[in-house]
Amino acid sequence: MANSRSGDKLLDRMVRILESFTAEEPRLTVAEIAARAQLPAATAYRLVDDLAGQGFVVREGGAVRLGMRLWELANRASATRDLRQLALPYLEDLNQLLRQHTQLSVLHEDEVLILERLSRPGAAVNQAHVAGRLPVHQTSMGMVLLAFAPAHVQSGYLSRHERAVADLHGDFRRTLAEIRHRGWATFDGFLDDTTTGAAAPVLDRAGHAVAALGVVIPRGSDALPAVSMALMTAARGVSRDLQARGD
Amino acid sequence: MANSRSGDKLLDRMVRILESFTAEEPRLTVAEIAARAQLPAATAYRLVDDLAGQGFVVREGGAVRLGMRLWELANRASATRDLRQLALPYLEDLNQLLRQHTQLSVLHEDEVLILERLSRPGAAVNQAHVAGRLPVHQTSMGMVLLAFAPAHVQSGYLSRHERAVADLHGDFRRTLAEIRHRGWATFDGFLDDTTTGAAAPVLDRAGHAVAALGVVIPRGSDALPAVSMALMTAARGVSRDLQARGD
Repeated sequence: MANSRSGDKLLDRMVRILESFTAEEPRLTVAEIAARAQLPAATAYRLVDDLAGQGFVVREGGAVRLGMRLWELANRASATRDLRQLALPYLEDLNQLLRQHTQLSVLHEDEVLILERLSRPGAAVNQAHVAGRLPVHQTSMGMVLLAFAPAHVQSGYLSRHERAVADLHGDFRRTLAEIRHRGWATFDGFLDDTTTGAAAPVLDRAGHAVAALGVVIPRGSDALPAVSMALMTAARGVSRDLQARGD
Repeated sequence: MANSRSGDKLLDRMVRILESFTAEEPRLTVAEIAARAQLPAATAYRLVDDLAGQGFVVREGGAVRLGMRLWELANRASATRDLRQLALPYLEDLNQLLRQHTQLSVLHEDEVLILERLSRPGAAVNQAHVAGRLPVHQTSMGMVLLAFAPAHVQSGYLSRHERAVADLHGDFRRTLAEIRHRGWATFDGFLDDTTTGAAAPVLDRAGHAVAALGVVIPRGSDALPAVSMALMTAARGVSRDLQARGD
């Protein structure tokens, strides 16, 4: 048991080190890593050495960054690889037809996790990053993922975020029912007040959302009906391809 | 020191477990993991539990697969994220104009690591997977990456693969010089004898390859000159964007 516990602690420290790196700060000194991971400097140095030995991090001059080995391991057998590969041609279609940012996301740990994002120069502002997270009940992708989630996922989310949801939405279950009826969701930009998001669900055979396709457009655009129709059309294409593969 | 050594061993075991999963077999039982990672079953069970606690793996029925958490950590601060985002519009252009598979790769540990791949229904056979690896001196992407690599990288590769390279290429340094002069490389399909690859380098300010753009076409196609011109044009676009960002 002692062995298991110390192993668990070590893994936890390793994860805290890997979590120190972000999209905004992909390069860190070991001192910065130690501070963020809340580790003594000597421990951080030793663990960074161990991680570097596995190619999980690499040293670049005085800095450390995540290594290709970690990326390779995480991507080659990723649960989302097939979904991403299936969805990519549809994301490209939307990106070209609508001339706006398009993205693919899933519901993960009560947040929206961005799996893919195609950007357009000159398109509306979009804060989403690949592998970044967005809140569920403040984004169109989150709302559509939740509206088409199994009942127990909806109930779980509502119980954990009851107050925040009530402040923003009033009758949240009714809002979700409306989204299910309409087939798509829209939400004014949560990080940027000049944009509006729209999203449609990718559905499995049971009719539950496995992912969402989303587009960000300028707020007040009269293109919203056309955008939502394109999104639903593309999302049905991805759903059909996914279901044909037996997922 | 004992602490460091046991930590290193544990990390090594964790990595062997994560390495058990492949594109072809993304779902494994713990017994299969134990066999592939060469661990006693009890150890494999305990470490899989630890990894599941961190979201690095998830249980699905009786099977285990890689978790979203690993994907998220590896992608959000990945060294290749910017490169991939910059190159994606160009890959799409090539994919649409040439109507063939297009891919983005880097040289990594004496192999070609595929960062991105856009496929076309009905295009030539292409065995490459995202996060998959291909050999260097048997693929067009590998040849162009090596031809435009710094001198010490070339020498290192040649010294480690001297015999294999000589068997296949004869005067390899001359072949590399010709590729540098021409600006692109072509190589008959290494995994499939009905295809030919073509590739052009993405260059940094020093003129060294940081990545390669590649296309797979049917062998003997008379489109090769046009394909190579499109590749070089797209690769220059990516290089310019990359250099403009100061990378």
